[in-house]
Amino acid sequence: MENKIGFIGLGNMGLPMAKNLIEAGYHLQVYNRTADKASALDQSKITVCKTPAEAAANVDFVVTMLPEDDILIEAVAGADGILKTLPKNALHISMSTISPDAAEALKKLHDEAGNHYLASPVFGRPEAAAAKKLWICVSGDAALKERAKPVLENLGQGVVDFGEGVGSANVVKITGNFMIMASMEMMAEAFTLAEKNGLDRTNVADFFGSTIFNSPIFNNYGKLIANKQYEPVGFKTKLGFKDARLAFALSQKSNAPMPLATLVHNRLLTAVAKGKGDTDWAEGVGGGVDDDAGI
Amino acid sequence: MENKIGFIGLGNMGLPMAKNLIEAGYHLQVYNRTADKASALDQSKITVCKTPAEAAANVDFVVTMLPEDDILIEAVAGADGILKTLPKNALHISMSTISPDAAEALKKLHDEAGNHYLASPVFGRPEAAAAKKLWICVSGDAALKERAKPVLENLGQGVVDFGEGVGSANVVKITGNFMIMASMEMMAEAFTLAEKNGLDRTNVADFFGSTIFNSPIFNNYGKLIANKQYEPVGFKTKLGFKDARLAFALSQKSNAPMPLATLVHNRLLTAVAKGKGDTDWAEGVGGGVDDDAGI
Amino acid sequence: MENKIGFIGLGNMGLPMAKNLIEAGYHLQVYNRTADKASALDQSKITVCKTPAEAAANVDFVVTMLPEDDILIEAVAGADGILKTLPKNALHISMSTISPDAAEALKKLHDEAGNHYLASPVFGRPEAAAAKKLWICVSGDAALKERAKPVLENLGQGVVDFGEGVGSANVVKITGNFMIMASMEMMAEAFTLAEKNGLDRTNVADFFGSTIFNSPIFNNYGKLIANKQYEPVGFKTKLGFKDARLAFALSQKSNAPMPLATLVHNRLLTAVAKGKGDTDWAEGVGGGVDDDAGI
Amino acid sequence: MENKIGFIGLGNMGLPMAKNLIEAGYHLQVYNRTADKASALDQSKITVCKTPAEAAANVDFVVTMLPEDDILIEAVAGADGILKTLPKNALHISMSTISPDAAEALKKLHDEAGNHYLASPVFGRPEAAAAKKLWICVSGDAALKERAKPVLENLGQGVVDFGEGVGSANVVKITGNFMIMASMEMMAEAFTLAEKNGLDRTNVADFFGSTIFNSPIFNNYGKLIANKQYEPVGFKTKLGFKDARLAFALSQKSNAPMPLATLVHNRLLTAVAKGKGDTDWAEGVGGGVDDDAGI
Repeated sequence: MENKIGFIGLGNMGLPMAKNLIEAGYHLQVYNRTADKASALDQSKITVCKTPAEAAANVDFVVTMLPEDDILIEAVAGADGILKTLPKNALHISMSTISPDAAEALKKLHDEAGNHYLASPVFGRPEAAAAKKLWICVSGDAALKERAKPVLENLGQGVVDFGEGVGSANVVKITGNFMIMASMEMMAEAFTLAEKNGLDRTNVADFFGSTIFNSPIFNNYGKLIANKQYEPVGFKTKLGFKDARLAFALSQKSNAPMPLATLVHNRLLTAVAKGKGDTDWAEGVGGGVDDDAGI
Repeated sequence: MENKIGFIGLGNMGLPMAKNLIEAGYHLQVYNRTADKASALDQSKITVCKTPAEAAANVDFVVTMLPEDDILIEAVAGADGILKTLPKNALHISMSTISPDAAEALKKLHDEAGNHYLASPVFGRPEAAAAKKLWICVSGDAALKERAKPVLENLGQGVVDFGEGVGSANVVKITGNFMIMASMEMMAEAFTLAEKNGLDRTNVADFFGSTIFNSPIFNNYGKLIANKQYEPVGFKTKLGFKDARLAFALSQKSNAPMPLATLVHNRLLTAVAKGKGDTDWAEGVGGGVDDDAGI
Repeated sequence: MENKIGFIGLGNMGLPMAKNLIEAGYHLQVYNRTADKASALDQSKITVCKTPAEAAANVDFVVTMLPEDDILIEAVAGADGILKTLPKNALHISMSTISPDAAEALKKLHDEAGNHYLASPVFGRPEAAAAKKLWICVSGDAALKERAKPVLENLGQGVVDFGEGVGSANVVKITGNFMIMASMEMMAEAFTLAEKNGLDRTNVADFFGSTIFNSPIFNNYGKLIANKQYEPVGFKTKLGFKDARLAFALSQKSNAPMPLATLVHNRLLTAVAKGKGDTDWAEGVGGGVDDDAGI
Repeated sequence: MENKIGFIGLGNMGLPMAKNLIEAGYHLQVYNRTADKASALDQSKITVCKTPAEAAANVDFVVTMLPEDDILIEAVAGADGILKTLPKNALHISMSTISPDAAEALKKLHDEAGNHYLASPVFGRPEAAAAKKLWICVSGDAALKERAKPVLENLGQGVVDFGEGVGSANVVKITGNFMIMASMEMMAEAFTLAEKNGLDRTNVADFFGSTIFNSPIFNNYGKLIANKQYEPVGFKTKLGFKDARLAFALSQKSNAPMPLATLVHNRLLTAVAKGKGDTDWAEGVGGGVDDDAGI
């Protein structure tokens, strides 16, 4: 049993993460809403399951990588949810971007069921997931963090500890996603201003990206936005909008006014309203700035 | 004459830049509105002048580092301006953050006077100036850029060329300053959100600053804002507001809507209206976000 | 039984409304969280109840005027909620400002219990409630609207029909409250601009209020904001913030980007964060604009 | 000479105003950049002039109604400007929407020339101008205001005095135009929210326009925006954008942060950038809100 892991959610992020766990020697009991996603995995190393409950049977760990609060809660506490089967004392490593409220609620459900919950959201796009370059934020009980480490270390380049608060890692994740959106808006406005004033936007992006703004976010998203190259889609605008809503809800709840968060929220909402929810969120932001500038 | 340079403007930035030129072997004819600033320089290597005109007499180069359009234009074309004395064919290396319109106007004045103008604005705070770590953006006539290079190389870690447009380097500078303000707003909102949700804001700043946002701007300003350590004052809020106005004017003129630029413009305007124009602009932004959050 | 009405919620609005129903000849079974509010009513015309359930027993109508979704839902479906006692076929006239989602949920609960629900939110401050000058928006089943009319006509100057949608009247109410906040922001910015430019802000308010902006909202709130006279408190900033959240949630849900709604949302959130949640919302907005202008 | 008036600017507003002066018995010396506009006037009552100077010769009053600061200053102080001919002691009644700075500058020019300047900007669209329903704001020297009154009373329904400040009436005008834009944004967001939630936007506009928001601005612009009926063009988006710039400049200069003013500024800038500068400003605002909502 020790090398079996339940793995739920084979989307853009979940699939490469599952591959890395397989490569590390684990056998995965996988579940995905649309089962054919599993065909990309080595069939000898996985068991394809029909429900989350099936995937969580007889394992020490179940990893979830699902797009939002409600879907994750359904996968945990629904009629076919993992709580139906997850063994006593097993650990749910919850890697989705969800609200700290949902994290609290999930922990409570697991506590009642006699097993465990750990918030472990990640930073990184699908390429980073594939390259084991994710940054993984954890928070919660110290023993649980220790226990999850050997699994998590197969998925990223670092596991960073944000203390005991069950939802603290989720706050960090939401904060970070807000900063990514804000950076995209900043770059899109900057490059558009430069373009409108006769400069080459990629030159400007290169200069800042190799000097005072030289960071992974600036360079990765900056290239997409400077070149207006928005495919392939790594992270959808509609998921970005979900994260903007999480940031906004946190701002409301914790009395922290965030005008820039509302600006990017509205930028992504506009993209969704215009029917661009399935584009990459760099297009959701960058394309919106271009639209408004008439270019 | 070849090792004499006129140097106008001994503020927070100008003073360490002047020191570096002196160290490189130049003799400086310095002018500053308040003359006592020159007492920080090696008196054997400078001539203290009473007017910009005096400073520009008998030199090949005059360097200006002044806070805004009007002050620079007065120093060039005023009653005691450098055009009164600057030799034919000499070069004005204009390092201030000014509008591209002002750059065009100044070039025209120099053309008429038979000497030359080159836009060479810089990125970096006073510490960077002292450490010769500035980034210097140039644009304009190729021969002039070539001629200025030996001087400029004593002042920074790189001279970056943005083409022939006389004001293009200024556009880049304004664009960059907008991005710095936007980054400060982003960080201030992010760290405040984290703090309000029970996290240590310096931990959060450190995590992002050492991973996906690892860049000089994020780390330099992020530390100030995370620690709410706003002294000593490196760059004043009221000068930041001036730069926000430049960005905004450029946005208006070039039909490039920039909602984030207006947000930070209003942030800095609010700080000025509240009497905080002389604080560091990191406080103008970060302190404003804190105020609004009641912390 | 026909002249008995259950009445739940004796706040700033509920109390004068209850008085008007008593004056119209009804006997009220009143419930309020803090019972002493009922002491302001003619004791011979009321029965003071200990629970919502008690207030809803043996009546044809129960009127609710409570501050938010959760409180209303508790009063309806909680352990001592009105569903415990409300007779078959009786009608719940729901006059609070709530979300259309809550309206849908409440209708369903009443349907299941064999009685009825009607959305009837109102426009007007406490003075208007006292003077029977409220505007009452209704939507839902035609027969229910007909049945509620004789009751509602004692409370306002007009009952306006917004069709069959159970939550449509709530959408109108939320839309209207958004416009009131937006108008306050508009006036506060305008009067502050005038003041800062040497004009008398009340003169400016009077001119616009007697000409092109001559409307009840402009004149009522305009006077408060022009004179910075924010007491007595008619409607609290924290309740205004609740309504801003409702508007914002509706904007998110219906793909309708509303940058102005987010601006006033943040204005009220800032006031709450600064500890001003119990001031009048005119102060929440107007005082915030003044603060930012340093006056 | 007493019944002759110089009249400069026969645009959407100037033309009906000129008609009213003719009807009141004045003979007009008219100048317009494109001379054929004058063909709409009774030719027996006008003299068509080739320059502003010609129009200002031998008159007691010259009225100007021009679109912006620079154009007005050129018409006054340019090579063929009215200062070339305007008689000593004659009065320039300046009815355009201009900055208070321009008003100061123009007053100075007239003072030097020995004649007079009076700020008299107006509120009202072309229909209101035709119907003598304009509201006219005046400020400046008391004697000049007295002298202008008989002329101005032929143009509107009221002349309102804002004191001695030469530019004060312009501040009021800019403030009012900001409020009109803000009201349009408010209505456009409100009606779009209602529409997206299944309500009829004209019903909602009618309800608010006949109750708590019953004012000329709400009803005139509300109808246009509710019905998305944006023709004929009464006031162009690009002129509205000019006024937004004036409001913004005043905000900057007087340390009065105005986030709502910047929001509508960006709304109109976006419309201009998208090539809609020649639409009615109700379309510039309302169409922009619709675009962002994908309807």
